[in-house]
Amino acid sequence: MTATNPQVNLRGPIDLLISGGLVLTLNDRKDIFPDGAVAVAGDRIIAVGPTRGLMETFPARRLLDASSCLVMPGLINLHNHAAMACFRGLADDLPLETWFHGHIFPAEARHVNEENVYWGTLLAAAEMIRSGTTTFCDGYFCEDGAARAVVAGGMRAVCAQGVIDFPAPGVQDPGRNLEVAEEFVRRWRGHSSRLTPSIFGHSAYTCSPQTLKQAKALCLEHRVPFQIHVSETKGEVEEVVRRYGRRPVAHLGDLGLLDSATLCHHAVWVDEGEIDLLARSGAGVSHNPESNMKLASGVAPLPRMLARGVKVGLGTDGCASNNDLDLLREMDMAAKLHKVHAGDPALCTAVQITIMATRGGAAALGMSDDLGSLEPGKKADLIIIDLNQPHLVPLYEPCSHLVYTARGADVRDVIVDGRIVMRNREVLTIDLEQAMAEVRRIARSIRP
Amino acid sequence: MTATNPQVNLRGPIDLLISGGLVLTLNDRKDIFPDGAVAVAGDRIIAVGPTRGLMETFPARRLLDASSCLVMPGLINLHNHAAMACFRGLADDLPLETWFHGHIFPAEARHVNEENVYWGTLLAAAEMIRSGTTTFCDGYFCEDGAARAVVAGGMRAVCAQGVIDFPAPGVQDPGRNLEVAEEFVRRWRGHSSRLTPSIFGHSAYTCSPQTLKQAKALCLEHRVPFQIHVSETKGEVEEVVRRYGRRPVAHLGDLGLLDSATLCHHAVWVDEGEIDLLARSGAGVSHNPESNMKLASGVAPLPRMLARGVKVGLGTDGCASNNDLDLLREMDMAAKLHKVHAGDPALCTAVQITIMATRGGAAALGMSDDLGSLEPGKKADLIIIDLNQPHLVPLYEPCSHLVYTARGADVRDVIVDGRIVMRNREVLTIDLEQAMAEVRRIARSIRP
Repeated sequence: MTATNPQVNLRGPIDLLISGGLVLTLNDRKDIFPDGAVAVAGDRIIAVGPTRGLMETFPARRLLDASSCLVMPGLINLHNHAAMACFRGLADDLPLETWFHGHIFPAEARHVNEENVYWGTLLAAAEMIRSGTTTFCDGYFCEDGAARAVVAGGMRAVCAQGVIDFPAPGVQDPGRNLEVAEEFVRRWRGHSSRLTPSIFGHSAYTCSPQTLKQAKALCLEHRVPFQIHVSETKGEVEEVVRRYGRRPVAHLGDLGLLDSATLCHHAVWVDEGEIDLLARSGAGVSHNPESNMKLASGVAPLPRMLARGVKVGLGTDGCASNNDLDLLREMDMAAKLHKVHAGDPALCTAVQITIMATRGGAAALGMSDDLGSLEPGKKADLIIIDLNQPHLVPLYEPCSHLVYTARGADVRDVIVDGRIVMRNREVLTIDLEQAMAEVRRIARSIRP
Repeated sequence: MTATNPQVNLRGPIDLLISGGLVLTLNDRKDIFPDGAVAVAGDRIIAVGPTRGLMETFPARRLLDASSCLVMPGLINLHNHAAMACFRGLADDLPLETWFHGHIFPAEARHVNEENVYWGTLLAAAEMIRSGTTTFCDGYFCEDGAARAVVAGGMRAVCAQGVIDFPAPGVQDPGRNLEVAEEFVRRWRGHSSRLTPSIFGHSAYTCSPQTLKQAKALCLEHRVPFQIHVSETKGEVEEVVRRYGRRPVAHLGDLGLLDSATLCHHAVWVDEGEIDLLARSGAGVSHNPESNMKLASGVAPLPRMLARGVKVGLGTDGCASNNDLDLLREMDMAAKLHKVHAGDPALCTAVQITIMATRGGAAALGMSDDLGSLEPGKKADLIIIDLNQPHLVPLYEPCSHLVYTARGADVRDVIVDGRIVMRNREVLTIDLEQAMAEVRRIARSIRP
């Protein structure tokens, strides 16, 4: 059952061997190795299998004992505005209009700049690493700050510069929004193997068809992903229908925006025809149940999207509407929400939800060759969860534990791109005290 | 602003002073002391106020530094079958009938005995302590095992022996169910100030009117709480209507079961008249959103119950239908579920939910004089949450953090009855390795 990449050069010791864990590969066969190991050379996995065999085959410079632990692919957070960590808890339990126009929008207008985005994203990265996320997909303004934080913090990310037809932080003249976005993409493309730049057209109700088409054209030209918020609220759908006579997903289809390099965030209010269109186009969709619940946006038709083969991954959305970035918690919420919403306890199984938070996200990002499962040849992005805790005992089904019981704080070690970025819950790539102090300082300027 | 109990004997040092924390009293005025302290003598709080004043007034034998921490009343888990920790994750994502009759019921019939209930409850107690619960309300069979675990584990609990008109674990002859329950109450009444015995009439569809009336009569005689599952599923309501021509809450009212010493669990499918009846009777209600979601039972009318003044607290239900006992997670789920269900993001605020998980539970248990807030004269049941972590930065509103961001693993110290039962996340009252080993052993007998 050991899977090995035959193309790897096996002379000399490998870099890292994780051994003795319950290895959940999430490969096509859903192989589980009860006493399993993962061999890592450089930034890649070179073998996955029983510990005994791998220990003999692969002498390693570094051994990581994962006994009493679950070893699995790192989680993929498909939708985030990471820097909004600065606004965490600033304005909760409010009507949507008051929340946005009374609090979040003014705070963004006054306090979003590259420096604050850097610190907010760095703090968010620390939180994500500490809760088992290895890759996140981001979109915000002054995104250079986010990109710098990703490079510094050791995570993998898709970072998108936001485009909107209004004055925005860092882009006071909306006439320059595409130019700024293109500059961002040029600056960061090829900069780090962990960072993929992207452009985020805010939405069909805040960007003209022309802006969206040009943004997508730039993405195609530079071969980077295009992102957009789609059908998050009922009000948005009504507005787009009023303006363009088409529902949002159909409108995006008309504009030629939907293909496998486009990510649609939310897709809460989508009808059957739009689900079909999403599936046929190959576009990715992020499902963000906690944000949709907290803002009372609605319940996305996740079971139908999954059944039709839409490439759906899981996201947290930003901290202003969640308020945390713990994907394990998001998994629990997703599984339970859809069960009660449909009145069917067999819906959205723990296995389906686990796959959505890993392989699903990788597929939606077009990164399935590199991410989403523990297989030879893929990037060594993986997490180690400590199972030796009261709330994780007994263990009958690993995926049940992941979805219904485990939480971010159970993640012991995190490896991104073959590098250990958290060991025994200590984040090795980020000065936590400094990141917390800086974000507290920013918060004092937001609410003195 | 310092609140002190004048009746306390102030000669000599007090037992414990918790100082320097952000103290969330949850008293009537909702006082918050940003640099606050709590003074404890014996099992009681004797003063709450600013650190500076209390440090001078109350020399203490033991100081607990709570700087960078939030200090608040211990959480109250109003509905649990703690020993079902043994079945955690045994049977998930299944149709209700298969889940219960195919898995849980047979496992209970074969594996529930006093010894297993002891270990399951002890493990559950460890999990609850580690996630900030200081009091839980339990009901199961072979409940002597649970009572022993509560006494040993250092928590506060209401433990109810289950009554059902079928052969049950430990009570093969249902003709003896009331006798066994009364013996249980006699045995444990007055045994420990932390333990209140109780009788749990399983439900209106599994107990005859006669059984329920007799069980309630025994509770009144011994002055202990009576508990019952009510209107958890639509099917249950239909069955009760078919048999008795009345909806379940009305049926219980007819039988004279509803008063302030009765706890109704779930109350998902209750109509306006039943909500009124619950409010007028003074009966307590446990709201268990995660269990109701996972089993697709439905969404209880929590906002309406709260608006009508029903005494509602928060519960996790047993581990077979949740699958964890983390009330902070349950709080998050509750706040978000009702927002999206009603389409109103201003519903079920963080403050309301925090109160439900503390004062609400105390009121439902008839224990408001002793529990639910940090006030002089009340029991010293409190928890200390470490705020110096990336996901809890920045801090604008304490209750927002509690509900939307904090998790069980953020609880640093737990005090029950004036005694420190967890310090720096180490549970001092339970041998965790032993409890985990015993429950793993039980699990191997359940699924070899």
